[in-house]
Amino acid sequence: MSTPTFEQYLASAVAVAKEVSPMVLENYNNRDKKVEYKGAVDLVTETDKAVEAHIIKRLTEQYPETKIMGEESTKDGVYGWTDEATWIIDPIDGTTNFVHRFPLFCISIALSINKQIVVGCIYSPVLDELFTATKGGGAFLNGQRMSVTSVDSLQQAVVATNVGYDRTPYGIDFMLTNFKSIMSQNVQSLRFSGTAAWEMASVACGRLDCFYEWGIHPWDIAAASIMITEAGGVVVDPSGGPVDMEGRRVLCGGQKIVDIVSKLLIPKQPPTDQQ
Amino acid sequence: MSTPTFEQYLASAVAVAKEVSPMVLENYNNRDKKVEYKGAVDLVTETDKAVEAHIIKRLTEQYPETKIMGEESTKDGVYGWTDEATWIIDPIDGTTNFVHRFPLFCISIALSINKQIVVGCIYSPVLDELFTATKGGGAFLNGQRMSVTSVDSLQQAVVATNVGYDRTPYGIDFMLTNFKSIMSQNVQSLRFSGTAAWEMASVACGRLDCFYEWGIHPWDIAAASIMITEAGGVVVDPSGGPVDMEGRRVLCGGQKIVDIVSKLLIPKQPPTDQQ
Repeated sequence: MSTPTFEQYLASAVAVAKEVSPMVLENYNNRDKKVEYKGAVDLVTETDKAVEAHIIKRLTEQYPETKIMGEESTKDGVYGWTDEATWIIDPIDGTTNFVHRFPLFCISIALSINKQIVVGCIYSPVLDELFTATKGGGAFLNGQRMSVTSVDSLQQAVVATNVGYDRTPYGIDFMLTNFKSIMSQNVQSLRFSGTAAWEMASVACGRLDCFYEWGIHPWDIAAASIMITEAGGVVVDPSGGPVDMEGRRVLCGGQKIVDIVSKLLIPKQPPTDQQ
Repeated sequence: MSTPTFEQYLASAVAVAKEVSPMVLENYNNRDKKVEYKGAVDLVTETDKAVEAHIIKRLTEQYPETKIMGEESTKDGVYGWTDEATWIIDPIDGTTNFVHRFPLFCISIALSINKQIVVGCIYSPVLDELFTATKGGGAFLNGQRMSVTSVDSLQQAVVATNVGYDRTPYGIDFMLTNFKSIMSQNVQSLRFSGTAAWEMASVACGRLDCFYEWGIHPWDIAAASIMITEAGGVVVDPSGGPVDMEGRRVLCGGQKIVDIVSKLLIPKQPPTDQQ
């Protein structure tokens, strides 16, 4: 059998994202969801687990040679990411939103080869927004080509980030110091939407100008990162250097606004991430 | 002619909100919108003005005796609110989102009599969410009864607020001091969505637990405030005292979480609101 093309992998990812979507929506509308806590403020539901299991089953049936890195099936802190073709899955990005029936959450599926993301699929069931990208093939929202913005000042920029799960005094001060830097530059606005994958996809399609976050995992950013680069943007470390997909931090957007924001963000010093 | 009932007023508000919705969506999808700036970071579009004019026309045709207080037609800082039956209109709450094609924004229409809100209608065109309430008649989302949550600790609560338009050093420090108070109590999460009316409606339906903001106007909170109280919640001053609808600040949610948050929020001292 010949090696599948990126487009074939993408088609499979899109098909399974749409296939699990009714299950996700049914549970979204059900108030009696069973919720577990990973940490004090980090939630996981039975739906996350069931959706991830279904996605893994479908994709490994079709592509037995592929590996899996998934939010619910990967041991915390040990990603085990290799050069082999690997599906990187976040069954529900934005679980807190999902649990609270806040409509912003998505299914995120990426494929990496040699640790390079080559396929990205993000689907928001409530908004019916399908974001797709393949390496070299462009990025699309519901079939329409996406582009990041070319905004070159914070006064014109809507910047997105999230408060994550770190509630230590250092973690809070670190976060607020960065907010203050950005606010002081007369930023047009800030958004916290609680779903990194959808927020990065929203940067790819130009509705947000910039996104950064500390504490994220590869499955939060994998699919969206290929969308950003295929939409003409950059995905970097908050310092402005190369991104480490396993480094728990990201900054992305058009090159100009990323250059501005990277100079404003201080690095997170002690490795005190709580999740 | 007999005095219209609250339900009749509501039906008229719903009808006009749905009537202007295609115009709003058409402009939302048009990238070439003309944008004006009220202040450095406060936007207004031609769509805001056209939608408000259309709503006013329809409602005053049907109810010639009613007065108007609207975001675009009211002179800034002079609300002129009286005891007469008054439509309080925000044609597009969340204009920054609208301009950037971020999907969270809404049309908000309220009716006050003797300065008491008696009818509220909020419609989100992208999400197709219709929130309605009448005094004594309950609050509904797409026809389903709404209730605020009974959450009694910040660890279980998603709290929403916004960064508004104040970028003075005092304004920024004030905002961050309040974030820090809430974060330090291990809040489950924070959301900034950029549309106070929709965020308050989201508190009414229980997807957010609490909302507060300084800098808001009566048209941002009028329709949503009757939804919160009819959904079993409270709308108060951030100090916990009675709300002043013209006072540029609000706190709302279930009584228990409002009691907790009101003790954490510091009052805004100098009257330096910039818009």
